[in-house]
Amino acid sequence: MRPGAKRNTEDINYYVDGILSGNRVVLSQAITLVESKLANHQALAQRIIEQCLPHSGRALRLGITGVPGVGKSTFIEVLGMKIIEGGGQLAVLAIDPSSQISKGSILGDKTRMERLSSAPQAYIRPSPAGDSLGGVARKTRETILLCEAAGFNHILVETVGVGQSEVTVHSMVDFFLLLLLPGAGDELQGIKRGIVEMADLLAVNKADGDVAKKAQLSAADYRNALHFYPAKESQWIPPVMTCSALNDVGVAEIWECILSYQEFTQKSGFFDQQREQQTKNWFQESIQQLLTQQFFNFPGMIDHLQSLEKKVMDRELSPVHAAHMLLQTFWAQQNRS
Amino acid sequence: MRPGAKRNTEDINYYVDGILSGNRVVLSQAITLVESKLANHQALAQRIIEQCLPHSGRALRLGITGVPGVGKSTFIEVLGMKIIEGGGQLAVLAIDPSSQISKGSILGDKTRMERLSSAPQAYIRPSPAGDSLGGVARKTRETILLCEAAGFNHILVETVGVGQSEVTVHSMVDFFLLLLLPGAGDELQGIKRGIVEMADLLAVNKADGDVAKKAQLSAADYRNALHFYPAKESQWIPPVMTCSALNDVGVAEIWECILSYQEFTQKSGFFDQQREQQTKNWFQESIQQLLTQQFFNFPGMIDHLQSLEKKVMDRELSPVHAAHMLLQTFWAQQNRS
Repeated sequence: MRPGAKRNTEDINYYVDGILSGNRVVLSQAITLVESKLANHQALAQRIIEQCLPHSGRALRLGITGVPGVGKSTFIEVLGMKIIEGGGQLAVLAIDPSSQISKGSILGDKTRMERLSSAPQAYIRPSPAGDSLGGVARKTRETILLCEAAGFNHILVETVGVGQSEVTVHSMVDFFLLLLLPGAGDELQGIKRGIVEMADLLAVNKADGDVAKKAQLSAADYRNALHFYPAKESQWIPPVMTCSALNDVGVAEIWECILSYQEFTQKSGFFDQQREQQTKNWFQESIQQLLTQQFFNFPGMIDHLQSLEKKVMDRELSPVHAAHMLLQTFWAQQNRS
Repeated sequence: MRPGAKRNTEDINYYVDGILSGNRVVLSQAITLVESKLANHQALAQRIIEQCLPHSGRALRLGITGVPGVGKSTFIEVLGMKIIEGGGQLAVLAIDPSSQISKGSILGDKTRMERLSSAPQAYIRPSPAGDSLGGVARKTRETILLCEAAGFNHILVETVGVGQSEVTVHSMVDFFLLLLLPGAGDELQGIKRGIVEMADLLAVNKADGDVAKKAQLSAADYRNALHFYPAKESQWIPPVMTCSALNDVGVAEIWECILSYQEFTQKSGFFDQQREQQTKNWFQESIQQLLTQQFFNFPGMIDHLQSLEKKVMDRELSPVHAAHMLLQTFWAQQNRS
């Protein structure tokens, strides 16, 4: 693309050429289309994604989660710098539910990742607040594809480990890292059920100064606890490590561990199997979502649903019978129209 | 119902009167209709369920799971006898995936529960092998309603802790009990991910003879491990107990624990909230299932899905775009018809 080429919002080549040549401004514009709710933006976004598809899939996709205060930004800054110092190109995608309330926290994060945000090999993109966190996270799948087409061979998706987004993020990454605070167990109360089970690596951060010893103890406790978790499909045994992102201690070892996971699962074939399964699931979920959404968009369906639900709750109708009635009305309407 | 009344398969009153008067033969016949795949059986079953609905919901619903060999049958026999000796009426519903292969195991179970199966206050109903375990488990929801209408105030749903059915069973019971073997952690390899998190009580069974000590150690280990699990929505902290169903040791304490859970959650309101939420979810799931099933039953949909999936896997189409295409074709067909 010529420098200074004028943006034509209808011109798909503007976007595709820009992305494939690694132009971050165009990449950002395309991601904004992906995140937009306007129908024409969505249609254009889908065409851009499709053109980028053959150039996607080559990055290592990492998910990182942890409760607020665990030091995710500092950790990502340090890990990210190691990745780009090793010759990698890194895109960081942040999904932050708190942005819906405070608005400021993501920008705060971005300025906190000072070195990374000024490195030419890194691209940081916070996700805007959406209606539903799950919805925002779903857009992230498409954003990953665009970043890969733009040449980023490392994608890091960051979430706050308190909500629903982790399950969705887990369904789009190759490796899932859980950051923990020193102090056995208690802080997990803030982490949603199921997140520990998804992790491929647990890292107790802030293992510095007075709490270094405490962090070691926490790690040992977690190690014991993990014995009671069932084996992972990947056959990978999630290690528990300690680190101090602040002092750059232990992060290099975590990065090596991630790379050995990649090697291990690529050898076993799990890496590709998981990718394939994730794509299939994404397709299935998209069908389910669209079908349900379009179904309830038909005039009167929501009202009908609510009046049936009331009867179900009052034990006048069984849930199965009520569902049959709703569907019958729907198909009858279809045939009339 | 008159004794010896002739069965008229069209006569809904035969079933409803029979169930409400606690006639087990009629109850069994009605459950067979619920489990049947024939459309006329299903229609009749739905009408029976609806008539029974106002008389349902009054039982304490328990789920019990554990790997094969953990001693579920013996445990249920002993716990069941305590329930009926305390004046309760108990229905045991067994969902067993192995029955699909061996056929014999459920009958084996039934004969193993000797005292319980001959007690007039107990009713044991194994679920027949179905196409899908989830499908069988779903029918169990309706079977619970019928058993409650027949006067059973305790329902015990038994599953083997290796498959998908546990999640479904968890969504229909008030309390979920996980039986474990002595021996730290290892045997959990056979237990599906997520099952430990669902449990309201963990009991290490076979705490007898030589392994009594081992069972105590296992329980202590599990107790430690549970600290690393997030808090439950019910605010109930799942205890870890030991028992020997064979020697009737510790089972009474487990039963008391279940009753204190009931008291605790009824006081806090969680008991009723969970029931309401389960009913709502059942309705929502039924709609989703029917909609998806009827959608894919339309001529050509499966073929169309498969050819689109191939394009998705070959990166010719994005999953979201392919889903849109499938839906578009579908609605176009609807409007043509």
